Amino acid sequence: MPDPRFFRRAGPFSVREIAAWTDAKPSGDGDLDLPISDLADLTQSTSNDLCYLSIAEYATADSACGVCLTTADLSHKAPPNSIVLVVKDPQAAFAVAAEAFYPHLPETIMKAVPTPSGAFVDGTVKLGVDVVIEAGAVVGQKAEIGARTRVGPGVVIGAGVVVGQDCQIGANASLMACLIGDSVVIHPGVCIGQDGFGFVFDSVLGRHRKVLQLGRVVIGNDVEIGSNTTIDRGALADTVIGAGCRIDNQVQIAHNVSLGERCIVVSQVGISGSCKIGSDVVLAGQVGLADHLTIGQGAQVAAKSGVMRDIAPGQAVMGYPAKPIRTFWREVAVLSRLTTRKKP
Amino acid sequence: MPDPRFFRRAGPFSVREIAAWTDAKPSGDGDLDLPISDLADLTQSTSNDLCYLSIAEYATADSACGVCLTTADLSHKAPPNSIVLVVKDPQAAFAVAAEAFYPHLPETIMKAVPTPSGAFVDGTVKLGVDVVIEAGAVVGQKAEIGARTRVGPGVVIGAGVVVGQDCQIGANASLMACLIGDSVVIHPGVCIGQDGFGFVFDSVLGRHRKVLQLGRVVIGNDVEIGSNTTIDRGALADTVIGAGCRIDNQVQIAHNVSLGERCIVVSQVGISGSCKIGSDVVLAGQVGLADHLTIGQGAQVAAKSGVMRDIAPGQAVMGYPAKPIRTFWREVAVLSRLTTRKKP
Amino acid sequence: MPDPRFFRRAGPFSVREIAAWTDAKPSGDGDLDLPISDLADLTQSTSNDLCYLSIAEYATADSACGVCLTTADLSHKAPPNSIVLVVKDPQAAFAVAAEAFYPHLPETIMKAVPTPSGAFVDGTVKLGVDVVIEAGAVVGQKAEIGARTRVGPGVVIGAGVVVGQDCQIGANASLMACLIGDSVVIHPGVCIGQDGFGFVFDSVLGRHRKVLQLGRVVIGNDVEIGSNTTIDRGALADTVIGAGCRIDNQVQIAHNVSLGERCIVVSQVGISGSCKIGSDVVLAGQVGLADHLTIGQGAQVAAKSGVMRDIAPGQAVMGYPAKPIRTFWREVAVLSRLTTRKKP
Repeated sequence: MPDPRFFRRAGPFSVREIAAWTDAKPSGDGDLDLPISDLADLTQSTSNDLCYLSIAEYATADSACGVCLTTADLSHKAPPNSIVLVVKDPQAAFAVAAEAFYPHLPETIMKAVPTPSGAFVDGTVKLGVDVVIEAGAVVGQKAEIGARTRVGPGVVIGAGVVVGQDCQIGANASLMACLIGDSVVIHPGVCIGQDGFGFVFDSVLGRHRKVLQLGRVVIGNDVEIGSNTTIDRGALADTVIGAGCRIDNQVQIAHNVSLGERCIVVSQVGISGSCKIGSDVVLAGQVGLADHLTIGQGAQVAAKSGVMRDIAPGQAVMGYPAKPIRTFWREVAVLSRLTTRKKP
Repeated sequence: MPDPRFFRRAGPFSVREIAAWTDAKPSGDGDLDLPISDLADLTQSTSNDLCYLSIAEYATADSACGVCLTTADLSHKAPPNSIVLVVKDPQAAFAVAAEAFYPHLPETIMKAVPTPSGAFVDGTVKLGVDVVIEAGAVVGQKAEIGARTRVGPGVVIGAGVVVGQDCQIGANASLMACLIGDSVVIHPGVCIGQDGFGFVFDSVLGRHRKVLQLGRVVIGNDVEIGSNTTIDRGALADTVIGAGCRIDNQVQIAHNVSLGERCIVVSQVGISGSCKIGSDVVLAGQVGLADHLTIGQGAQVAAKSGVMRDIAPGQAVMGYPAKPIRTFWREVAVLSRLTTRKKP
Repeated sequence: MPDPRFFRRAGPFSVREIAAWTDAKPSGDGDLDLPISDLADLTQSTSNDLCYLSIAEYATADSACGVCLTTADLSHKAPPNSIVLVVKDPQAAFAVAAEAFYPHLPETIMKAVPTPSGAFVDGTVKLGVDVVIEAGAVVGQKAEIGARTRVGPGVVIGAGVVVGQDCQIGANASLMACLIGDSVVIHPGVCIGQDGFGFVFDSVLGRHRKVLQLGRVVIGNDVEIGSNTTIDRGALADTVIGAGCRIDNQVQIAHNVSLGERCIVVSQVGISGSCKIGSDVVLAGQVGLADHLTIGQGAQVAAKSGVMRDIAPGQAVMGYPAKPIRTFWREVAVLSRLTTRKKP
């Protein structure tokens, strides 16, 4: 369930309404007047939730989901107690419904007001002792900022955001839809919690359609995040940064990524959506990770590598595609020998 | 002709003045008192415009250009009716003249004033119905913002900028010298329309000299632009982003690039100056494109590839230098076999 | 000695106090009540400074350093007149001491106050003639801004920062702990002088520990810096950008890097810590440099290359790992031939 601190839900809506928006054909004889109150992932849903099933592998009999958007082919795999709504493209249909359930995104519920000190802080904000908010900073409704935290000039903290104690937020950083631990250092220009890169191609409309991003960013204690780094919020689940991580400048972390504890992520690394990264992993500068990868604890990726497959714990890889470091250097040597050998 | 909403022209100046600034030798017996009122590209010029010709291939007899800066070698290729000014380095000379014609860049004509609501909005700004401008945002002279658009906290909208209806501009984004369509989503920290990376080495001064960037950024409807992405304005022509494009975080788009419709540009891609990219192209994460490339409609470039040559429509490439995807993987396999074969 | 304009020193502290914080064992019979007033590099220290020695190669008999944190193994290499404090991890111990000597970082001493014009400028700021400070900009205590410089909307200039004449600072840029020359153009979203990526793993605490960054960024005249570029300040020494450099968008420059004059650094380049780059060097787009490299004057690195070794003056390299350009293309050709040859 999307966190109500960040996402204001509309509805409930009847199954009939949802079917109408999504041009869906109800299959079976479920109650089309059943009120549906929220969106959820198949695995975490209740009987008043709307879910979708687009790929056979994601099917599960364990889901309590009330209504399931799916295709004709997959309809027999929908959760047994759900009302099935048959559509052409379940993800696109879910995106349509999401816009009805969540018409107000965190970006649109700021409403901060000017204060005499030169900052703009809503009256409902909770501030710990000795919080400093510099000139030009903006703090939205019901945000919470822990004791001794310093909010730099021009920083924007969205409605409902929670920042822990003893944090330092650098100039012009932007924090939306996120929960930040204690002793976190965020450098200037960092963007956290904005809507991720989620869309589906809607073949009826002939254009990409936004898939609302209804998760959060959750950042542990003692994390440092470098200048102009961007961390998108999750789609339905959260994007998670474990305690003690060190993230350098201009790193990109996509929606639903999770980092374990004490990871080191060097400048200009890009981590694609839904990667699961263990603790104590080191990603050197300009590394790129494809989406949905699992990187084992203590793995190390050399600078500029392009990782396309999972990495086992403790393994060190390099290259594009990334391979064990010794293999990489052996290939470099072989190729070099091939060119020099040809001369005589 | 540079858009007068963004660029305030000085002059006119006589041919004689221009020759003096640029240390040029007039060739032939043209009227050195002729008033020249503007700068233009050879192909789009009138008899009161100043142009330059630095490379033989750009010569054209069709140009109506009034005065042409060129070298002694190329002077016979200058437009037939133009007054020819012979200089050592035509591009550097044009850069000198540009500074005289355009002493005020968009960056320097902001002049927003504080409003009681905590935003800074010039009195000449045109706002549609239900526009929301959050605290700390700054909107410059004669900017126009369409109905229902939300301008986030700390956003800077330069003088003359036009933003369409139903847009959402994220916190601390900066928009200069640009025209933005309807239903465009711009995420926090995005920088659009700043002066691009244009300069020439001035061998007399012994340093790089700025080439003023006098074009715009033009963004179509229904575009989404990710956090901390940067899009430079054009040099004389425009940088263009077609309708329906999806651009991820930390993408760099240089001056004079054009993207077709519905392109997908994933995080940390870099597109060099003057690339022409067709519709429905996909550039995966961390791809780099050399300058002046043409990428055909529907082409796909795999993550981390370095593209140095044009790509035909529908082609899929990968690698550095980028090659057809199957070739890439065949080379990976061959190289791998070479290293393993050596063991016995 | 850290620049007192940016770093407010506490202390002095006795050798005994430093030993207690760092769990160190004094070796020999030095005066444990000696007052120590500052931190320094071994080579630039005085008898009232605290230094550390963690690697044998950095040892020098020439140092006047008063107290030296080092290991038991290296203690015989500590400067002859210093009091030696034996610790397990000298760098971690130095980091602990640094936090006591410098409890206030530049980020925390802003204290700008609102002005009627919509900017926030401290009363102690020195402004040259015809300086323009746009709405929403914040200028901290004792900063100095030269004549005719324009400070864009939302710009943050930290306490003590010095900006020269005729500069242009783009919207929402952030400048801390830096000295900027004349005629410098800084584009929107640039972050300069924030704390770099410095930490050591503290095995006792089981987490990374911040190593305070006590240097500055020093930028020469006539430099241009592209949007959303990040330049970290030095650790103890400075990060230096030579006069006339042209730096594109989204470039990352780490702590202690020095660039010579007139270098061209294209978009999305990453330069790791302590690289020494000569004058007139060209780094093309998306290049990455490993740390501590020396790049000779006039060297050129092709786009997307990964440089792991020093480059001689005038050399042109390409690839990953970077090699002479001709070698790179020869290897590309050989590999291509190997895959096509196999078909018959």
